[in-house]
Amino acid sequence: MFKNLSMMTDLYQLTMMNGYFVDGTHNNEAVFDMFYRRKEGLDYCISAGLEQLVDYIKNLKFTDDDVAYLQKRGGFNEGFLRYLRELKFTGDIYAVQEGEVIFPYEPLMRVKAPLIQAQLIETAALNILNHQTLIATKASRVVHAAQGKSVVEFGLRRAHGPDAGIYGARAAVIGGCGGTSNVLAGQLFDVAIKGTQSHSWVMSYEDELTAFERFADIYPDGCLLLVDTYDTLGSGVPNAIKVFKKLREKGHKPVGIRIDSGDLAYLSKKARQVLDDAGFKDAIIFASGDLDEEIITSLNVQGAHIDAYGVGTKLITSESNSSLGGVYKLSGVYINGEFCPRMKISDNPEKMTNPGLKKVYRIYGKDGMAEADLIALEGESLKRPLVLKHETLDWKKKAVDDYTFRELLTPVFLSGKVVYQKRSVAECANYSQGELNRFWEEYKRLLNPHIYKVNVSEGLKKLKMRLLKEHSVKGE
Amino acid sequence: MFKNLSMMTDLYQLTMMNGYFVDGTHNNEAVFDMFYRRKEGLDYCISAGLEQLVDYIKNLKFTDDDVAYLQKRGGFNEGFLRYLRELKFTGDIYAVQEGEVIFPYEPLMRVKAPLIQAQLIETAALNILNHQTLIATKASRVVHAAQGKSVVEFGLRRAHGPDAGIYGARAAVIGGCGGTSNVLAGQLFDVAIKGTQSHSWVMSYEDELTAFERFADIYPDGCLLLVDTYDTLGSGVPNAIKVFKKLREKGHKPVGIRIDSGDLAYLSKKARQVLDDAGFKDAIIFASGDLDEEIITSLNVQGAHIDAYGVGTKLITSESNSSLGGVYKLSGVYINGEFCPRMKISDNPEKMTNPGLKKVYRIYGKDGMAEADLIALEGESLKRPLVLKHETLDWKKKAVDDYTFRELLTPVFLSGKVVYQKRSVAECANYSQGELNRFWEEYKRLLNPHIYKVNVSEGLKKLKMRLLKEHSVKGE
Repeated sequence: MFKNLSMMTDLYQLTMMNGYFVDGTHNNEAVFDMFYRRKEGLDYCISAGLEQLVDYIKNLKFTDDDVAYLQKRGGFNEGFLRYLRELKFTGDIYAVQEGEVIFPYEPLMRVKAPLIQAQLIETAALNILNHQTLIATKASRVVHAAQGKSVVEFGLRRAHGPDAGIYGARAAVIGGCGGTSNVLAGQLFDVAIKGTQSHSWVMSYEDELTAFERFADIYPDGCLLLVDTYDTLGSGVPNAIKVFKKLREKGHKPVGIRIDSGDLAYLSKKARQVLDDAGFKDAIIFASGDLDEEIITSLNVQGAHIDAYGVGTKLITSESNSSLGGVYKLSGVYINGEFCPRMKISDNPEKMTNPGLKKVYRIYGKDGMAEADLIALEGESLKRPLVLKHETLDWKKKAVDDYTFRELLTPVFLSGKVVYQKRSVAECANYSQGELNRFWEEYKRLLNPHIYKVNVSEGLKKLKMRLLKEHSVKGE
Repeated sequence: MFKNLSMMTDLYQLTMMNGYFVDGTHNNEAVFDMFYRRKEGLDYCISAGLEQLVDYIKNLKFTDDDVAYLQKRGGFNEGFLRYLRELKFTGDIYAVQEGEVIFPYEPLMRVKAPLIQAQLIETAALNILNHQTLIATKASRVVHAAQGKSVVEFGLRRAHGPDAGIYGARAAVIGGCGGTSNVLAGQLFDVAIKGTQSHSWVMSYEDELTAFERFADIYPDGCLLLVDTYDTLGSGVPNAIKVFKKLREKGHKPVGIRIDSGDLAYLSKKARQVLDDAGFKDAIIFASGDLDEEIITSLNVQGAHIDAYGVGTKLITSESNSSLGGVYKLSGVYINGEFCPRMKISDNPEKMTNPGLKKVYRIYGKDGMAEADLIALEGESLKRPLVLKHETLDWKKKAVDDYTFRELLTPVFLSGKVVYQKRSVAECANYSQGELNRFWEEYKRLLNPHIYKVNVSEGLKKLKMRLLKEHSVKGE
């Protein structure tokens, strides 16, 4: 990632910032929320990327070259360009922590800052959080499908450029992957790296057996052999077994085989049988090749004998959903010191936003399991009993009294100072798994998951109704 | 992008490199080809990313910290780690130029280098070329659908991290986009940047009309107004027209309106009528919001009145194909100075590779239009007449005599020295458009394009048959 991403923003942000500056409204405080909308496969998500967002904001600095570039392009006020040279972030940011389990429409980040600053950071904030949250979520789904078997992230070569590979690997580990093939990600984030050999190793020798023998000589205790270069069952597995027998004679324990093509269900069952018959019951079968959560589920249903998965392209690009689609919407501005809530109405009703300065509560039942999330206005307190409702059917409701709760949005920047405690990728992954365990399986299943309740408080509901009414009166 | 990406490789590359080193085969010259396989929507592609690949190779350097990290992880030979400290690329690379029109299965890059070096660069080369070629190709398809109307790349916020946004914008311009919203991409690559205002500008004022008036005051000659914040036809367009009238009175020419949601076909036709009736026939209608080549085609069919498109998420993530799927395959090694061609056979027949040291010729008919590409062995010359065949049906063929040709693979590195002439993004885009014009429309249409002939030479065909036969004899 470029160390200084200040110029990585949409031109319209600078156009608007210049406008606010000329208009004299640039220092009005504004409140923006980031949230995502529901799509199939993006019901629960795993938040990731906050650390890189914090770094971006800490490193914000428009250089002389940057300002000269904008000046040359034209259209910007000279005073604004001088202002840019001095710009620093001075606002407050609250966000969910990395690894948090989050749901559609609830704010995962809230920015309160001078309008001009809050506008600037929109693009980079969305870029970073949309990307890592997308990949952490995809990883979580793949890991869920693997039912306890290890999943390693293998996608660097198909990622959308270097950052997508590096930060995608980071997000994949937060989402539950046991490691990555990406050495730089291993070095940067202190996560496990994995990998043995590719087809080119096998092909660089005169024949497959020689290639396997040489690998076993060099890595006698890390001998995982790729068996599908020429003919998996015809030559790959028999050659691997020859090599494993020699290793065993020398007192080493072979690791196993990797199958990267062909019918993985069939080949893994056949290979398991042959390995078992040769006395290598502990040798693992590692599968790779265009896998995702659906194919892994299907392999499980078919009784494939696979002990670990390498998942590449479809994980690192989140093939099933190419973007999270997270948005960053204005929910209020302070005009002459008075807070004015704002709501986008739009021609698409599902694009209507939640106005006001908001909090998100997670409600746990007395069994410790998550019951619902509640989006409330700052200052609203939780009642006992608390009435939880179905998403759209108001009459489907229940009152809970014996509950615990916590706030999902925690302070990250206060008055421009970083106040959050940076955590390692391993800690984020552990946190995420712990929190996922507090959700019933029904919310996490891949197909038609039960819709988790994200309720809107009475106060917020009243505010929305008021704004809608005001707008329709104005519109007449 | 990180300046030094040496560690951005798959662990298995380092595992194999260490193996080759211990085995003493690391300095054997090896030949690898990069190519992609056919998928719907990835028939013709536009190559991009070469400049970043060259930078990566020029900057290759394992630092003391890198080596210490690998040493700590363990499993590497001490001599190998010392070798890494000194590693530089000393080989030859031939590649298609940026903006080249390329087809499935033909090499778009050929690397000839000591095995250990050629193995190392695989991952980064695939990462960079796969990504940018994918996005340039998607952009080319979107631009094709727009039938001459301008397309601006708007996807930074949904790109897979910073590099995906920055180099994706670069690739999109090579693929034909007229500009990008991404300011950093504009600065780095000297491409046009575009953008006016978002919903937050409109929402930050008490009402839409005030927001439009303020924008028009500040940008009287760049007044493009976003009209869908509250109600496109009910308030957005009428308010825009009020503002445009005032601008006209003051001698300014309004640019037009942007519609970002709702039914773009319907809204654009209605808005056009209202603008025309108010005497603003020159005011453009700019459309954005989840567009891609299919939706643009549909809008054209419906007779939508749209003058320019902003295309974001689905372009920058290449939603229809999340990866190019390019691979890098060993096609030969020199053992004791003798060249030994190699071919991957695999359990999936379509994964069989083309062995040997190869060239790619593009054949143009006497009308100057592209007729076919020919993959031939180094040293094979082109005959006259040349027999061109259907991809799979050998009896469908024709002989051409009056043709011209050129080689697609041109030298980029020779003995580790950069020998290619870096070109600007604008030059690459122009080159690409010029070359695309030499292909019949039938090859470029989005749905069921005619399959362009990529022939295999007689020499290459014989070599493949010989290797298949040798392998099946060995396999018995």
